[in-house]
Amino acid sequence: MERHTLLIDCPDRPGLVHAITGVLFRHGFNVLANGEFVDAAAGHFFMRTEFTGVLDREQVGRELADALGGGTNMRFARPTADKSIVILVTREPHCLGDLLIRHEYGELDGSIRAVVGNRAVLAPLAERFGVPFHHVGHEGRDRAAHEAEILEVVERYQPDYLVLAKYMRVLTPAFVDRFVCRIVNIHHSFLPAFAGASPYQQAYDRGVKIVGATAHFVTADLDQGPIIAQGVIPIDHTHGPGEMAQAGRDVEKIVLARGLRLVLQDRVFVSGNRTVIFD
Amino acid sequence: MERHTLLIDCPDRPGLVHAITGVLFRHGFNVLANGEFVDAAAGHFFMRTEFTGVLDREQVGRELADALGGGTNMRFARPTADKSIVILVTREPHCLGDLLIRHEYGELDGSIRAVVGNRAVLAPLAERFGVPFHHVGHEGRDRAAHEAEILEVVERYQPDYLVLAKYMRVLTPAFVDRFVCRIVNIHHSFLPAFAGASPYQQAYDRGVKIVGATAHFVTADLDQGPIIAQGVIPIDHTHGPGEMAQAGRDVEKIVLARGLRLVLQDRVFVSGNRTVIFD
Amino acid sequence: MERHTLLIDCPDRPGLVHAITGVLFRHGFNVLANGEFVDAAAGHFFMRTEFTGVLDREQVGRELADALGGGTNMRFARPTADKSIVILVTREPHCLGDLLIRHEYGELDGSIRAVVGNRAVLAPLAERFGVPFHHVGHEGRDRAAHEAEILEVVERYQPDYLVLAKYMRVLTPAFVDRFVCRIVNIHHSFLPAFAGASPYQQAYDRGVKIVGATAHFVTADLDQGPIIAQGVIPIDHTHGPGEMAQAGRDVEKIVLARGLRLVLQDRVFVSGNRTVIFD
Amino acid sequence: MERHTLLIDCPDRPGLVHAITGVLFRHGFNVLANGEFVDAAAGHFFMRTEFTGVLDREQVGRELADALGGGTNMRFARPTADKSIVILVTREPHCLGDLLIRHEYGELDGSIRAVVGNRAVLAPLAERFGVPFHHVGHEGRDRAAHEAEILEVVERYQPDYLVLAKYMRVLTPAFVDRFVCRIVNIHHSFLPAFAGASPYQQAYDRGVKIVGATAHFVTADLDQGPIIAQGVIPIDHTHGPGEMAQAGRDVEKIVLARGLRLVLQDRVFVSGNRTVIFD
Repeated sequence: MERHTLLIDCPDRPGLVHAITGVLFRHGFNVLANGEFVDAAAGHFFMRTEFTGVLDREQVGRELADALGGGTNMRFARPTADKSIVILVTREPHCLGDLLIRHEYGELDGSIRAVVGNRAVLAPLAERFGVPFHHVGHEGRDRAAHEAEILEVVERYQPDYLVLAKYMRVLTPAFVDRFVCRIVNIHHSFLPAFAGASPYQQAYDRGVKIVGATAHFVTADLDQGPIIAQGVIPIDHTHGPGEMAQAGRDVEKIVLARGLRLVLQDRVFVSGNRTVIFD
Repeated sequence: MERHTLLIDCPDRPGLVHAITGVLFRHGFNVLANGEFVDAAAGHFFMRTEFTGVLDREQVGRELADALGGGTNMRFARPTADKSIVILVTREPHCLGDLLIRHEYGELDGSIRAVVGNRAVLAPLAERFGVPFHHVGHEGRDRAAHEAEILEVVERYQPDYLVLAKYMRVLTPAFVDRFVCRIVNIHHSFLPAFAGASPYQQAYDRGVKIVGATAHFVTADLDQGPIIAQGVIPIDHTHGPGEMAQAGRDVEKIVLARGLRLVLQDRVFVSGNRTVIFD
Repeated sequence: MERHTLLIDCPDRPGLVHAITGVLFRHGFNVLANGEFVDAAAGHFFMRTEFTGVLDREQVGRELADALGGGTNMRFARPTADKSIVILVTREPHCLGDLLIRHEYGELDGSIRAVVGNRAVLAPLAERFGVPFHHVGHEGRDRAAHEAEILEVVERYQPDYLVLAKYMRVLTPAFVDRFVCRIVNIHHSFLPAFAGASPYQQAYDRGVKIVGATAHFVTADLDQGPIIAQGVIPIDHTHGPGEMAQAGRDVEKIVLARGLRLVLQDRVFVSGNRTVIFD
Repeated sequence: MERHTLLIDCPDRPGLVHAITGVLFRHGFNVLANGEFVDAAAGHFFMRTEFTGVLDREQVGRELADALGGGTNMRFARPTADKSIVILVTREPHCLGDLLIRHEYGELDGSIRAVVGNRAVLAPLAERFGVPFHHVGHEGRDRAAHEAEILEVVERYQPDYLVLAKYMRVLTPAFVDRFVCRIVNIHHSFLPAFAGASPYQQAYDRGVKIVGATAHFVTADLDQGPIIAQGVIPIDHTHGPGEMAQAGRDVEKIVLARGLRLVLQDRVFVSGNRTVIFD
């Protein structure tokens, strides 16, 4: 029996769940899990439903559209097996390595098509796992030319998502706007604390007792996009910036993988600058 | 607009959510939050719905019964303002004190009717907050006589729940059976580790690096009842059993309060020896 | 056998631990616990030693001064039983209530002399525990006059520390400078995120997945003082600012109590804007 | 300037720190970090000191022995660069993959000499990183013969430590006794809860709200050896045993890596069935 996921968001009104489940019921679908949320402040409704059954997407889509009226975002999720990503990296191997291992052993809910690095140092790691690596150096090029070349490489693979796995260059709004809610970044701090460069040095200077990591969608505003997942670890006065960075790597890779899993499983709705997550 | 909570659990079958939300929709109720869960292994369905509207409990109950058929447990939650508890204690003040402060300032979702202690030491604490304290000493009485007297005191207050806030006596099955899923205990370990007496000494002897606390329903089997909430704190080799106990008090009181809140807000279903919690 | 705590910090140089432990050894003291830390960047040494023995403070102090030379901060901690605090509050009871219960049952490592509120609402809570409450309203007074009156009340008690237990007024640099490293505040966010007013609203607007609390020393820069302790709790999209605030109260009171315990037990050194903590 | 680590444990008596630091001071060593602990119940002293300087191990060792008398365990740690491990695995790739990536990028504090599997499935993973893999199948052999062959393979590499990275066979006491405090295992539960087989199924059946992982030294008693590190993650009623296992993999690999780092950096003393850790 095939498994499907229906994703709906629309202005809230009474009877939505009844109307939606009615369509699913008439088709004899078996609902496995249902998540609903009403953002009362925004007056907006979100729903994610997993069900099994023989699905005629067009027919069921038409009936749902009839039942729900206009202004509705509605789609059936594509199977995770069909999802694809391209990963951008610079020098650090821990996030990329973690994703490659998950990918190799079927834990990623998507397919890594390629890795693009502004440094070449991680080429051997990607290649160990048979994933193409493209070195697009930024030296001697202006930002626009560099991004144009990255874009050219990325578009060869037509990925669903870009993943910034410790990619240490800022992307321009022009680039970001081509991938709205489709670029997932890991920032090595507990945002909004320590946005920008050198978060561990900032954390050391401020003398915090906990550091963290944040997986978020990238928007034109650096480090300001909707947050998907966060994690923290305790530190103390014996941690210099280097020790924090070392301790932080584990939480970075785990939080990035968790955030990416949520995205690839279509568990994340974006609502303004916030996320609604059906986990 | 009055706020209501509907609680339903029954054998799973297709169309349940549609049928239930249909009844609510026809009455013009506005659903605020909906939680559903199907225990696939047990083939059982659980649902908790909060809604506003003018509710004729009997009429709506009849319609839901018609829509759902037999074998259904269905009830409307009583307002938390009407819920009452009696707290049993021995010597330690931290859990009782925490509940009294929450109660005093409207954070408890229920009313503390009385405190019963097998020691008298906490009488002044209860009395500072104007809550009656009953000392029912166990010395010189056999267990049956002691429990009979406790029961006599408790029944004067007709509480919805009993809360064991570091009550250090084991209750007999005969007593427990009078309050099925109505006694909430805090055990000072991360169950099932260190069940029974002196969990911090056991934790010290075993050399664990994390200790915890568990809020659970009391059943006839000591420390084996359905778990509602758990919490943990890190420890290290510098913690003797005494230091663990001190550090553990904070997690004990927080976990007990969290578990009790879930119970008083009717967020907890018991399914065999497990809980389903709509948080 | 009396228990003593020696606190030393000075510019780092080889042989410090040997010199210090030599003095203690010659007096036949039995060292129970020793904490040392060298801030390599600052070239500064910190040490906290607990020992038992018959202590002639002047004589031992002289010998330590001889052994260590100039530029050394050295003192024997006063017994926690002699430490005193005055608590400042506004409206919220959870931190004050938690401290009062700990105080009542000997878990505070210090004595609460009085509570001062810019609102009167918490007077009954303090009075339930026999602690004097002073209402110093800020309405109709300018800031200077208000602080002058608070200061007048505080000075009657000559406390070692002031504790801001959800005191919602900003203190002026003039006030703060009278109590250098002697005012402990609980801020209801994970600093430096969400400094300033309404941190839970800020956290909601930013869409974070974890919120927290920070105990810190108050300096002239609002929310910028040295951090003593921090804690966090997970949240999700179902938490509005009100639900965050409710969930946050538990971590606020626990983190404040933990930070205050560290301070009262003389476990905290301040080094620039950072703390060195021997826990 | 070379960096050294001195490890000492002996019966406690006054003056130990003074005597030890005296020897180090006379040789002009610069102490970077010092950890001391007295297990008061056992009357035993533990110390770990990192220092820089030109070390004549024999000479300094002799002076320390003179200063401390008999009954002292004293050694200088070997450089982590010289430490070696052999990893035993069965089918699951996440722990092995995580260690291989760390190893490849210099984050392991030791060298992986080989991987031994009772299944062959992980051979390609080891080989991707150029690490020899030996398949020693257990089928058709009795336990003694199987272990003899593993031992034969292991001894070729003369490793300092064996790491059981989800090795799903029980080792016999005869095997374990050859590697006292030299075998590090990751158990996929929060020991002592759910010792033995199928911990996630056990956790599901018990209905716990938190699961965890434990890194420990292997002793002849299954799952009873000294605990080095533990970690936990929250779960709820929606997690079946399979979902728990998936969620648990991240904590397993992080806890194993953390425990192994502590061991390889000589930060772990074993005291009876407990560990003293200078982190």
